[in-house]
Amino acid sequence: MTSIRNIADDIALARRLADAAWAAIRPHFRNLDAVDHKSGTEKSGFDPVTEADRAAELAMRALISTQRPDDGVTGEEFPETASTSGWRWYFDPIDGTRAFVAGLPVWTTLIALVNPEGVPVIGVIDQPVVGERYLGWPGGAEMQTPEGTFPIRVSGNPDLRTATIATTDPFIFTPPEQGAWNHLRATARIARYGLDAYAYARIAGGTLDLVAESGLKAWDVAALIPVVRGAGGLATNWRGEPPALGGQIVCAASQGILAQALLALRRAAD
Amino acid sequence: MTSIRNIADDIALARRLADAAWAAIRPHFRNLDAVDHKSGTEKSGFDPVTEADRAAELAMRALISTQRPDDGVTGEEFPETASTSGWRWYFDPIDGTRAFVAGLPVWTTLIALVNPEGVPVIGVIDQPVVGERYLGWPGGAEMQTPEGTFPIRVSGNPDLRTATIATTDPFIFTPPEQGAWNHLRATARIARYGLDAYAYARIAGGTLDLVAESGLKAWDVAALIPVVRGAGGLATNWRGEPPALGGQIVCAASQGILAQALLALRRAAD
Repeated sequence: MTSIRNIADDIALARRLADAAWAAIRPHFRNLDAVDHKSGTEKSGFDPVTEADRAAELAMRALISTQRPDDGVTGEEFPETASTSGWRWYFDPIDGTRAFVAGLPVWTTLIALVNPEGVPVIGVIDQPVVGERYLGWPGGAEMQTPEGTFPIRVSGNPDLRTATIATTDPFIFTPPEQGAWNHLRATARIARYGLDAYAYARIAGGTLDLVAESGLKAWDVAALIPVVRGAGGLATNWRGEPPALGGQIVCAASQGILAQALLALRRAAD
Repeated sequence: MTSIRNIADDIALARRLADAAWAAIRPHFRNLDAVDHKSGTEKSGFDPVTEADRAAELAMRALISTQRPDDGVTGEEFPETASTSGWRWYFDPIDGTRAFVAGLPVWTTLIALVNPEGVPVIGVIDQPVVGERYLGWPGGAEMQTPEGTFPIRVSGNPDLRTATIATTDPFIFTPPEQGAWNHLRATARIARYGLDAYAYARIAGGTLDLVAESGLKAWDVAALIPVVRGAGGLATNWRGEPPALGGQIVCAASQGILAQALLALRRAAD
């Protein structure tokens, strides 16, 4: 067991994982024969799980089993595998299944590598329909498009009052969370919805300034943190502490905006 | 004055107009030096108007002045010009300015040609970042992407209960409109927000089943109708009558979904 790794090799593998996921997903996008329902959830609403989701996770797991057999894997669709290296990969093949079902190009594939201390060190947010791959690591972040690969940087906007903010679904907040979000929305200039992880990618890309969400899973969160931090942004829980791999998270383009947002978010913190 | 025209020539010109708009917009996307505010609107909220908007409309107007000097032009940014042919072009260079400011690839350029009877006969919904151009005319619709040009068709989903629906901003509805929307949202399977005209493009593309909006302007609406109808969809006002070029509009993928939705929408019709 060691936590000393060549991060460049892992970044190269992360790119291969994203390619493998898109190859598996592509035949299904805007071509859904059937949208499955997770068993037992029909009564509580709509929880689409597509063949694309499963095929992409299997493709990524297959790569890990040959390229990093000592690493663990945690994904949404299949059971967790053990890690003998202490390192663990987190996969969400299709984050934003509702956007995917609606044929919108704002779902993403999320890939993260988490070190033995539980800190995500590599994150990928891949949107292959638009052709945008956001990748973050300790100290840097980039966006890869058909035109090339470019370093990315948060806006640095210091003031929530001129900020563009987002959350995926304001209707899933608890009442205190709803109150906090309403405060942010009333203060900020523009609010956007329904973007899932793509919103965090656009913080890193410098066009969104704050995203606040709750109820997230580890495979939702792990990829976001290295991308946002690598681009100079901040990621904390709703108390301003280092974020857990799940639950409530807030990411911001500047310390100023984060501090303003936490005034409201702290009152609704878990 | 005559209403007899070679529609193929106008479709070819519509494509050139969309190309000209993107050439003018491209340098500004995710690169906004400054977001202007329309004078007098600062107190009531945020109404971004970018240089990109104006540059693209001027580029399209320049093409009309040389290629169709007898046609009129109505656009959001500059005064209406007269028509001696009876035909009129409608331009919205950036529909979805909030999405544009947020760096999201769901804003669109809207182009329409309306005949002397006031009926839109050609519509373009162009999303150049994703590389998707939706074009509709009497009897047909297509999507052009870097991979090629494909005929498009609505889903034909007959039932609102399994539908994916959208509206741009549920918070701008009047209370009766809000009530109607809440009924649709509670009945449908998935609801999406913040898509502006891109939602209508995805009705035509077969992945959204219904869009209901109010308070639209002529340059918002004119392009949508030929695209949705050309793909086999339906477009009416909230009474189920032929839509005006503005106000309340509902577009649906099937007669069944439209009829179900109108039960609620009629109660909030202007």
